[in-house]
Amino acid sequence: MPKETALDDAEVAARMAELSRWELVDGRLHRELRFADFAEAFAFMTRVALAAEKLDHHPDWSNSWNRVVIDIVSHAAGGLTPLCFELAHRVDAAADGASR
Amino acid sequence: MPKETALDDAEVAARMAELSRWELVDGRLHRELRFADFAEAFAFMTRVALAAEKLDHHPDWSNSWNRVVIDIVSHAAGGLTPLCFELAHRVDAAADGASR
Amino acid sequence: MPKETALDDAEVAARMAELSRWELVDGRLHRELRFADFAEAFAFMTRVALAAEKLDHHPDWSNSWNRVVIDIVSHAAGGLTPLCFELAHRVDAAADGASR
Amino acid sequence: MPKETALDDAEVAARMAELSRWELVDGRLHRELRFADFAEAFAFMTRVALAAEKLDHHPDWSNSWNRVVIDIVSHAAGGLTPLCFELAHRVDAAADGASR
Repeated sequence: MPKETALDDAEVAARMAELSRWELVDGRLHRELRFADFAEAFAFMTRVALAAEKLDHHPDWSNSWNRVVIDIVSHAAGGLTPLCFELAHRVDAAADGASR
Repeated sequence: MPKETALDDAEVAARMAELSRWELVDGRLHRELRFADFAEAFAFMTRVALAAEKLDHHPDWSNSWNRVVIDIVSHAAGGLTPLCFELAHRVDAAADGASR
Repeated sequence: MPKETALDDAEVAARMAELSRWELVDGRLHRELRFADFAEAFAFMTRVALAAEKLDHHPDWSNSWNRVVIDIVSHAAGGLTPLCFELAHRVDAAADGASR
Repeated sequence: MPKETALDDAEVAARMAELSRWELVDGRLHRELRFADFAEAFAFMTRVALAAEKLDHHPDWSNSWNRVVIDIVSHAAGGLTPLCFELAHRVDAAADGASR
């Protein structure tokens, strides 16, 4: 049983309005970031990893040197949940400290 | 100018013989790993990150909870170089400490 | 108000019996670890950091190349709490994966 | 044989003039930092770890929740070397991205 149930389209739209740096791609929250170099990118990833572990909700993400691509969805709920949006906001907070 | 030149097919084949857990996919070294959980996966990634930064040669990789997928190629050399294989061996050493 | 209250001496003694690699030093749980090198030590620290953030209980710790020294106590409770022992067990689990 | 020889007092004094946030304590470079929380502190430490591994010169450091204390010296050279100062500058660069 999922921890959370998926939000409906209207709820997703309302929450997307507060996430200006994310877009919806294939039903997932999607953001791409670019950093000064690998070390800065990986330090950012560490901060996101700590937030994800605390929330017990983890991103699907990839890294290539200074770039990080993040997708967020709840596989258990089969859609976007409040926790997905909470994780996205924490990614933004982590990025505001470090990305450019 | 690339730091290294790409190995030719015979050299790649010889080096692949020593990397039993990797396959060649689209001209890249490719390995997929699975860990007990996210924390173990990310600790492994940290160890690889430190090795990559030391070698100044970084993987293209992705993570989804307990899974890590790693691709290695030299974008600068346009192929596989000795450093690509060195990084792959260090990934294996890091995984032997932590993955199952 | 602390999240937890401190355990009394008898409770601490009972729980110490299950933590063979720790000793009580100045009322804190204390363990010293040694790894193959810095990269292995820091990967271990990353795994402990993820556990600590998840528990919302963090160690006082230091690192010098391949050595890590960990002290655990609840500053809020003014003593050792069940969460202190939970963190110590997670440190042991992380170390069993990586230290020698 | 050490990779580097220790700087003499005049050289140390000249280099200290460019490191306003560090002090000399017992012949070591010493700086204390404070972050918003543990996650931010540990992300900073990850960035320093990557720099240290790349330089092959590592700090003696400790962390307690949002605080990080760093000491730098060359044990091999028995004093401060150019690499010690390089590491200190990289710590400052990492901190400028994240600490307050």
